[in-house]
Amino acid sequence: MTFPSSSSEPRRGTVVGLGLIGASVSLALRERGWHVTGVDADGARADDALAAGAVDGIGFDPDAELVVIAVPVSSISSAARAALDACPRAVVTDVGSVKGPVVARVDDGRFVGGHPMAGSEQEGLGGADAALFSGATWVLTPTERTDAAAHAAVRQAVISLGADVIELAPERHDELVALVSHVPHLAAATLMGIAAASAEEHATLLRLAAGGFRDMTRIAAGHPGIWPDICAENGDAIVAGLTSFVAALTDIRDLVSAGDRSELLVRLERARAARVNLPARLAAVEDLVEMRIPVPDRPGVLAEVTTLASDLDVNIIDLEIAHSAEGDRGVLVIVVDSQAADLLRSALLARGYRPSVAALE
Amino acid sequence: MTFPSSSSEPRRGTVVGLGLIGASVSLALRERGWHVTGVDADGARADDALAAGAVDGIGFDPDAELVVIAVPVSSISSAARAALDACPRAVVTDVGSVKGPVVARVDDGRFVGGHPMAGSEQEGLGGADAALFSGATWVLTPTERTDAAAHAAVRQAVISLGADVIELAPERHDELVALVSHVPHLAAATLMGIAAASAEEHATLLRLAAGGFRDMTRIAAGHPGIWPDICAENGDAIVAGLTSFVAALTDIRDLVSAGDRSELLVRLERARAARVNLPARLAAVEDLVEMRIPVPDRPGVLAEVTTLASDLDVNIIDLEIAHSAEGDRGVLVIVVDSQAADLLRSALLARGYRPSVAALE
Repeated sequence: MTFPSSSSEPRRGTVVGLGLIGASVSLALRERGWHVTGVDADGARADDALAAGAVDGIGFDPDAELVVIAVPVSSISSAARAALDACPRAVVTDVGSVKGPVVARVDDGRFVGGHPMAGSEQEGLGGADAALFSGATWVLTPTERTDAAAHAAVRQAVISLGADVIELAPERHDELVALVSHVPHLAAATLMGIAAASAEEHATLLRLAAGGFRDMTRIAAGHPGIWPDICAENGDAIVAGLTSFVAALTDIRDLVSAGDRSELLVRLERARAARVNLPARLAAVEDLVEMRIPVPDRPGVLAEVTTLASDLDVNIIDLEIAHSAEGDRGVLVIVVDSQAADLLRSALLARGYRPSVAALE
Repeated sequence: MTFPSSSSEPRRGTVVGLGLIGASVSLALRERGWHVTGVDADGARADDALAAGAVDGIGFDPDAELVVIAVPVSSISSAARAALDACPRAVVTDVGSVKGPVVARVDDGRFVGGHPMAGSEQEGLGGADAALFSGATWVLTPTERTDAAAHAAVRQAVISLGADVIELAPERHDELVALVSHVPHLAAATLMGIAAASAEEHATLLRLAAGGFRDMTRIAAGHPGIWPDICAENGDAIVAGLTSFVAALTDIRDLVSAGDRSELLVRLERARAARVNLPARLAAVEDLVEMRIPVPDRPGVLAEVTTLASDLDVNIIDLEIAHSAEGDRGVLVIVVDSQAADLLRSALLARGYRPSVAALE
């Protein structure tokens, strides 16, 4: 595989599934000069996307270097296998909300699981937006089976769309996303459902719904069709998350019931501190260092290093793989915040790597 | 009591409690030409408010026609009684999140309970904003003890700040607000608490927190200090609301666990429809009618008519009380949407009123 980094020819890609996310990816790539074809099980939707200028053509591009699968979670693995066959030079990634079962089913070095943490209460082609991923966190879930060059290529493409990449093991992704996305979505829908049921009796109720309630239930306005799939594919983590949430709410209810003011205040202060400290988009870091890590040229190394960085909350701002002339070893070059470099360096040393650190020119 | 509706002298008011809401009320009244003094248990805060131009002076104004109490819920009734004594010509209202216990404790014809459904994750004087109430719903909770002229005066002042007024019985307010404000707040804090606890183990978790999670937990960033009071004063309704929420979440968890895709979809579709239909601010209504309702000049009539309108989801856009020359009867003149007029007229007829309806000039 070669991925031309500069050429007079446009880079070529295919997006499979032309809903909100797929069409947004296509628009964003095209804005950056790519030639992008679109594939959709619904031929009329593909035609609409072409007519709307979201894609340059219809069908798999056999010369594509990148295919992005943006279909419902239950269809990702078959769509990914079809793309791997149709586009023999391409790296293939997806944007599904559940990663473990998908990554296990595809099992090909050219496939890298992905999940942009971005969305919209819009849906379909009409809601597509080339800027949707700007500033978003985009998870990649490489495994020891993932080809390092494929991983690097997907990483570079995603970053070019303005997203911040973090790497996680697929199962860890699913567990964490259950807590920050799936359980909150179900909670919002449940809260809205209770309010709507009470509003049947007291019509004024919904007129009392001020900003806080509106904020909390906004995601319940999103497209419901994707959720049965997500709940099926990530059921264990979602059930565990809902169980924790129910237990914690029951606990709060008991504090209210018992009139335990001081413990209530402790809980609310803690939640407030956490919310106030919720990281915004990573600021442009001026104080960066380059870390060069000699690595054996075998699958899994890149996944190990990048997920290790994520586990340590070290943000990899840039990543490049320099292969040695001999071919059996290479150098992984990453750029990280200088404050985080020592932490990552120690962890890498403990795993037998020999990283060197230098200030960025 | 007389409330001059036009005069070369500025109208005079006092705000008690100069936090975010109190200072915002004062700024909004001053923007509309009022002279407003401020009272705060914390003398330094009152000085700050004066220095910042949020109030015209410090202390109760004995000539005030309106006093707004904006202190923590547990202190409202004593502050209201102090205001009723200090300002003998004033109508007194409050902005607390719980109404039943407060209204029961104050029990004076010149006091009208109130609650603007507006807030901010800001706090204190620095977050004050004269536009905070523009487009907000502002609940008033008159009872049969409330003086009709006092109610009308508070209503007119609140509407002048840009808010939409609805009248509710104090207990009904508390029950509904538990569902759309208190339970959501506790749920947001609980969700944030679970995520923060998990983030201690997996530092990356909070970097995955995208728009939906941020929206849902935003209110958890609000000032926690007010919540022990609210939970104490509205404990029964909050416990009932949390119990419903826990039961509904448990139900959803069981659907996920059982893989019941179709029922999950039904619930999410229903929630979505309700969220999409959440009323925005009432549009400017061009098609209005004036309803004239002869009423006995006794306490409670205005409360009965206005809470009846709210129960029927009829918005009272304007309200005036015309006293008859004889003094024992008056005419209540209200302006409502013409589409809602028939509904309200029938309900009033059923209660023995004799309303007449005419198109607005």
